[in-house]
Amino acid sequence: MKLYETKTAPNPRRVRMFLAEKGLLDEVECIEIDLQKGENLTPEFAAKNPMKKVPVLELDNGTCIAETMAICRYFEIAYPDTVNLLGQSALEQAEIEQWLRWLDYYFFIPCGMGFQHTSGFFKDRMTPVPEWGELCVKDVHKFMLFLNEHLEGKDFICCDRFTAADITAFAVAAFARVIKIRVDDSLPHLLKWYKAMQSRPSAEV
Amino acid sequence: MKLYETKTAPNPRRVRMFLAEKGLLDEVECIEIDLQKGENLTPEFAAKNPMKKVPVLELDNGTCIAETMAICRYFEIAYPDTVNLLGQSALEQAEIEQWLRWLDYYFFIPCGMGFQHTSGFFKDRMTPVPEWGELCVKDVHKFMLFLNEHLEGKDFICCDRFTAADITAFAVAAFARVIKIRVDDSLPHLLKWYKAMQSRPSAEV
Ligand SMILES: N[C@@H](CCC(=O)N[C@@H](CS)C(=O)NCC(=O)O)C(=O)O
Ligand SMILES: N[C@@H](CCC(=O)N[C@@H](CS)C(=O)NCC(=O)O)C(=O)O
Repeated sequence: MKLYETKTAPNPRRVRMFLAEKGLLDEVECIEIDLQKGENLTPEFAAKNPMKKVPVLELDNGTCIAETMAICRYFEIAYPDTVNLLGQSALEQAEIEQWLRWLDYYFFIPCGMGFQHTSGFFKDRMTPVPEWGELCVKDVHKFMLFLNEHLEGKDFICCDRFTAADITAFAVAAFARVIKIRVDDSLPHLLKWYKAMQSRPSAEV
Repeated sequence: MKLYETKTAPNPRRVRMFLAEKGLLDEVECIEIDLQKGENLTPEFAAKNPMKKVPVLELDNGTCIAETMAICRYFEIAYPDTVNLLGQSALEQAEIEQWLRWLDYYFFIPCGMGFQHTSGFFKDRMTPVPEWGELCVKDVHKFMLFLNEHLEGKDFICCDRFTAADITAFAVAAFARVIKIRVDDSLPHLLKWYKAMQSRPSAEV
């Protein structure tokens, strides 16, 4: 299988961490796509993912799966003997899905838009609206306060164990440096959790 | 179980359609939340969902599950003898998840933001940025062109059968009227699919 991805981008990082935690990194051949050069905007790449984003997983028969969580779910189901990261019971699966969605809508998306709209990093392909970017950055701060309170006395985001929700939260918290936000001791519970995540071998891949 | 929801809002509609397709509507007591009056902004409601959004499912033991897809997943796993809407095999689950995510990021979110930022409907609780709203509306048009092409010769969004992806696509396509977009014969493949969805009993609930 081939994984089209970008070493420095947060979504591919979520897939690599997910695979590393499951011991499945060796199952994929990683192919680096240079986003700034627009290697994801070519007709060849659009044939793999019409949304022109990384990551994309290409199966050996040529079938492509785009979207981070779709790729993660593929590995979760196809390799049932690996560590479970998306939940077992109905309630656990729902709790993890709830957190993945909260982290996406109220942390990751504001962070990504805050970055793109205040920096103009992708202004060759989208129209930055700085006023909107600033509002998004404020939402990121707000969510981090919520996350800090939530993590008081907890080692993990949910289900009392390491799950895909920790991977997403960690990848976004690390990515937030692009909008000059760093997890520091003003958010002590978040910082304690963040350091624990940072020390996992999967954080290095 | 209690379902806190709003009859006219697109996310609760996705849950109702999902339950109707599974024959599970009678399992929940629907409790109407008036969003415009801000009934979702009270401390009581925030205790159920700190993000202050509908839908929220409250189990009989008081546990709350927020987020449309988390609620849907709960019912998918907890009632395995009902019609499958989120996929069976790893590949099917991945394909549906990919489409759910595409529909969310490139159709639903732009539609919702286009509405909120051009209309000021929720200006008591967020700051509308009309320039951003206009760009979102353009993205909705773009995605509908893509969806129209994709649906040529197809009866369903993916997997050659009715899935949760059809529910999301239908709920958003119907909701798009708030930004003055209607599915019409300029998008014939989308229109054919839309009419078929509209004729399902679950579209009425
Ligand atoms: N919802 C997608 C988002 C993918 C995404 O936005 N990827 C970024 C890198 S983290 C990208 O490819 N950006 C390039 C571009 O926008 O041109 C996922 O979860 O995979
Ligand atoms: N990601 C959430 C979105 C929920 C959402 O935005 N719900 C809207 C109604 S469709 C809402 O509660 N809006 C009220 C508000 O923003 O104050 C989900 O899928 O459930």
